[in-house]
Amino acid sequence: MKTYLDCIPCFLNQALRAGRIITEDENKLRTILDEVGIILRDIPLERTPPEIGMLVYKKVGELTGEFDPYHNIKKDSTEKALSLYHLLKDEVVKSKDRLLTAIKIAIAGNVIDYGVNRVFNIEEDIDKVLKNDFAIFDYDKFKHYLDKTNEILYIGDNSGESVFDRILIEELDKPVKYVVRGIPIINDVTYEDALQAGIGKVAHILSSGTSAPGTVLRTCNPEFMKIYNNSNFIISKGQGNYEALSDERHPIFFLLMAKCSVIANEIGVVEGDIILKGV
Amino acid sequence: MKTYLDCIPCFLNQALRAGRIITEDENKLRTILDEVGIILRDIPLERTPPEIGMLVYKKVGELTGEFDPYHNIKKDSTEKALSLYHLLKDEVVKSKDRLLTAIKIAIAGNVIDYGVNRVFNIEEDIDKVLKNDFAIFDYDKFKHYLDKTNEILYIGDNSGESVFDRILIEELDKPVKYVVRGIPIINDVTYEDALQAGIGKVAHILSSGTSAPGTVLRTCNPEFMKIYNNSNFIISKGQGNYEALSDERHPIFFLLMAKCSVIANEIGVVEGDIILKGV
Repeated sequence: MKTYLDCIPCFLNQALRAGRIITEDENKLRTILDEVGIILRDIPLERTPPEIGMLVYKKVGELTGEFDPYHNIKKDSTEKALSLYHLLKDEVVKSKDRLLTAIKIAIAGNVIDYGVNRVFNIEEDIDKVLKNDFAIFDYDKFKHYLDKTNEILYIGDNSGESVFDRILIEELDKPVKYVVRGIPIINDVTYEDALQAGIGKVAHILSSGTSAPGTVLRTCNPEFMKIYNNSNFIISKGQGNYEALSDERHPIFFLLMAKCSVIANEIGVVEGDIILKGV
Repeated sequence: MKTYLDCIPCFLNQALRAGRIITEDENKLRTILDEVGIILRDIPLERTPPEIGMLVYKKVGELTGEFDPYHNIKKDSTEKALSLYHLLKDEVVKSKDRLLTAIKIAIAGNVIDYGVNRVFNIEEDIDKVLKNDFAIFDYDKFKHYLDKTNEILYIGDNSGESVFDRILIEELDKPVKYVVRGIPIINDVTYEDALQAGIGKVAHILSSGTSAPGTVLRTCNPEFMKIYNNSNFIISKGQGNYEALSDERHPIFFLLMAKCSVIANEIGVVEGDIILKGV
């Protein structure tokens, strides 16, 4: 998916938000906005938003010396998500369609996202998502592909959210490789975060190697690329991965919530909609 | 009120939104973002947001040749507001406190604002405002000042909204001078818009002369300044006028809804709150 003009002010907002975690110095924050503004003037819009995001957060890191501003926030959000684990597991166990409930829970976890201009309340939002109908619902196709595959490549998105991914992985009943970012970027899930979420108990954790907030293939490592190319069932979580992979011709199922008007328009849904979209 | 760093991405969004009314050409729109970005790099944050807004929209005008992109939208929103006039007038007539209900209606009209990043639905939002309590409520002081004055200076904000101002003016029961912007800026009310709203029937319409989306005094004409300086009861409508006049030491009553987090934080309320704030 290409980058839209609306993404430009949004990236400035993101840079400001990340900067504010690191410093309260208004002059430094202004410099961040100015310098990120210069980057944004030069970007080709044909690139995907996570490719631009990678440059924006790298610049914030360079200007402040802090390349992982969301470190503590990530730890906290995973802890918070872990405290909800049993409650959500119960929802799955008592539901009529365990797989479907687990998919919804995994998407609900996608509300934990500090990259978008959106305030969230985990408990409230989960409740909303569980009650919400899908705007795109390729569930039969999903089950068909799941049935045929021997292994699943599951591309994670955010920390905290990965606890909810674990609930879905436990229902998939097949070997899962869980893909994390190569280095910290926003609150995206890394190896360390996935371990904290307990993903190591249910899947093999694998780094894509990327430093983008989405699986931008040209920035991924050869080990991941080999596995990716040989996969016949891929679950892609969240908006960043959708933005990076939506033009791929590969058996990918996108599980996400449309958290801004740009992606909602691109997919043809409305903001806040939940999506299970097969290829 | 000073301009905050958060206003910078917001101004870019505003420029993009105004640009999109004029053209669909992505290259032109990109140029608008780039050029407005350059202006924003140089602005002193000590200036008020409407002072910056004036420069931003002027630049959009220069780049596109269209200095009044909201012309038709303004006409339509005033027409829409006029269609609600009798309904809202009935609300006032049947209420226990006519003045208070009219004040609430005038604030409700403030949702009609294309300058902020906010989608609105007039009927729904009016209903919400009428049911909402004030976050700041200097009503007794307002009545006290109203009682003592012989004349009211009423500074309008947006087109459409001015129909709701008319309802309040009709309850004030004193001669009113209604202040409009000097030239079109966003969807702010001008002389022509105020006439369309029927303000001419209930007040003397007066231009402040400003081309800013708020009453930035140093951009106002001498005629207005003389009246302003001699006024002992001023009603200031909306966010832009608050931003421009909040540091003034003058008998001003601000009637507004806090429509973004920046102004909400500045005033010490939450987004969406309604305010009747005396000096």
